[in-house]
Amino acid sequence: MKGSGLASRVYLDWNATTPLRPEARAAMAAAMDVVGNPSSVHAEGRAAKALVERARAQVAAALGAEGADIIFTSSATEAAALALAGRGIACAGIEHDAVRAWCAEDLAVDAEGRVTVPEPGRATLQIANSETGVVQDLPQGLAVSDLTQGFGKLPLAFNWLGIEMGLVSAHKLGGPKGVGALVVKRGLDVAAQLRGGGQEMGRRAGTENIIGIAGFGAAADAAAKDLANGVWDEVSQIRKILEEVIASDAKTTIIVGKSGLRLPNTACLVTPGWKGETQVMQMDLAGFAISAGSACSSGKVRASQVLRAMGLEEGAAASAIRVSLGPGVTEEEVLRFAEAWLAQNRKFRARAG
Amino acid sequence: MKGSGLASRVYLDWNATTPLRPEARAAMAAAMDVVGNPSSVHAEGRAAKALVERARAQVAAALGAEGADIIFTSSATEAAALALAGRGIACAGIEHDAVRAWCAEDLAVDAEGRVTVPEPGRATLQIANSETGVVQDLPQGLAVSDLTQGFGKLPLAFNWLGIEMGLVSAHKLGGPKGVGALVVKRGLDVAAQLRGGGQEMGRRAGTENIIGIAGFGAAADAAAKDLANGVWDEVSQIRKILEEVIASDAKTTIIVGKSGLRLPNTACLVTPGWKGETQVMQMDLAGFAISAGSACSSGKVRASQVLRAMGLEEGAAASAIRVSLGPGVTEEEVLRFAEAWLAQNRKFRARAG
Repeated sequence: MKGSGLASRVYLDWNATTPLRPEARAAMAAAMDVVGNPSSVHAEGRAAKALVERARAQVAAALGAEGADIIFTSSATEAAALALAGRGIACAGIEHDAVRAWCAEDLAVDAEGRVTVPEPGRATLQIANSETGVVQDLPQGLAVSDLTQGFGKLPLAFNWLGIEMGLVSAHKLGGPKGVGALVVKRGLDVAAQLRGGGQEMGRRAGTENIIGIAGFGAAADAAAKDLANGVWDEVSQIRKILEEVIASDAKTTIIVGKSGLRLPNTACLVTPGWKGETQVMQMDLAGFAISAGSACSSGKVRASQVLRAMGLEEGAAASAIRVSLGPGVTEEEVLRFAEAWLAQNRKFRARAG
Repeated sequence: MKGSGLASRVYLDWNATTPLRPEARAAMAAAMDVVGNPSSVHAEGRAAKALVERARAQVAAALGAEGADIIFTSSATEAAALALAGRGIACAGIEHDAVRAWCAEDLAVDAEGRVTVPEPGRATLQIANSETGVVQDLPQGLAVSDLTQGFGKLPLAFNWLGIEMGLVSAHKLGGPKGVGALVVKRGLDVAAQLRGGGQEMGRRAGTENIIGIAGFGAAADAAAKDLANGVWDEVSQIRKILEEVIASDAKTTIIVGKSGLRLPNTACLVTPGWKGETQVMQMDLAGFAISAGSACSSGKVRASQVLRAMGLEEGAAASAIRVSLGPGVTEEEVLRFAEAWLAQNRKFRARAG
């Protein structure tokens, strides 16, 4: 975090957004030298177009989506609108707000956060939850899946998932914020929502964010290599240490979804009666960045919609925090966090009697 | 154009997109070090949010839009959809495709490219045309104006224009591609099209493109200084030289809109019978990047819609090229271009007999 004056801090909010990977930074710096508009036919335009197409191939390869269509968007949020708006798709209450905005919340969620999908062709289901890390089994023929939290952290191949469309985001895997994609099984129609210049094969108009797209491609490529090299197994080991230290002391704290399959980096801690927002602020002052619920809710203070959908009552849901790790977060750092958090937790328990 | 292998080329397609300004590049490099999500409440999130808000103030100041709402989008195309979709707004046939997509082409255009607007409150009109450079007098109370080609090149103050909303784009004034904004008179409602996280005061969801937005802010700031320093007067002088050299030899070539107010950098040359696409390819081979019509039409080969709307017949409209200059383009470069173009023009005239 050089340059930000936050050098001594520990960033444990990787599900909200990730630091930019050096590979992405280098690709973006190179893209800054390319002057053309990808829609122009001259040499400068063709050079810009080539950058976009290279990134498209990188994202497809990293996601096991060779042969599928990758439609670059400005975010997974935009990809969600493109995939879902006006289609009468069903979802569960644990989906991200950008998905819930376009679907009917008809699907049941059990206490472990797992969703049942009676009609996959008319439903959307996330691969993994941003707050709890709970991983879903995606049914064959699923219409749409929000893959944002899984892409880069889980071994995924779009072409093997048996789904029709997937949403992904660059900034969850070390790429820049402001770039996403809708991945579409070849041959399926997608009606453009942004209209005009006819970019992205007529499915999404607007001059391409070539610097950001180049960063996404490079980040996806690097993320796939990290994953293959077992980087997330190490992260998972660090999380295990964190959760064990916390569980050994904070006996009233529940680790959500722990019994099932979770993302390797996410710990969702519920301490009934101790407001999540309070914990986030206390930890921020102590030098640790964590979150209460999804970052994307723009600072709204409210009980986690995800945990409410899993059946937790309002008070418990409002007392959740999310600690999400990434490659490079050390054992020493999470132990330092656990110490700071447990110190506050003991005070809370003393006050609560 | 270092790094692109196009070092000896001359880029004369600034209305399609511009080289990245050094100030934008520096701001973007600095933003790459900021790890947080602007929606997160911790210090890292607040640092990211501060970057976005700084850029918002820079764009507002450069555009004379202090106190207006600046809604950052992924492009002027997205801003057009946000401003226009579903509102039954009237426009002329000279508007950009991204505007025409959402409006009824009811407004008359005269042969000089000027548009009459009977009901400004239900109309949209561009400040300047990307192909001809023709500048419009915007009527008071105009609902929406596409300001993309004017912002940075013309002395504009949103707050003095008397319009309700304006569309702008970063990459037309030295910022990165993939960032735009909708500028809205304070107090007006704009219904979000991208829904989810509630960013941009609930008007545009999706994690912000903070690197791109930082670049937009810095570019807008630098562009405003350039404009105040008379940089575009110099560009206008260079264009004058170009047009005089061309007019003195290519007697059948028409310079569109020359008698009225135009952008300082744009020359639209119509040579009936000589296809614009052919000229673009010949000039590309000779080392010059120019265009036939708007770049944003994604390589579609067709007669200019803009010139057709101005009353030119199909053959004439198909024979237009646009040469658009920018700060730093030298007299020597445009003379070199004129020489190359006139050499081909003489061959065309000889063939045409």
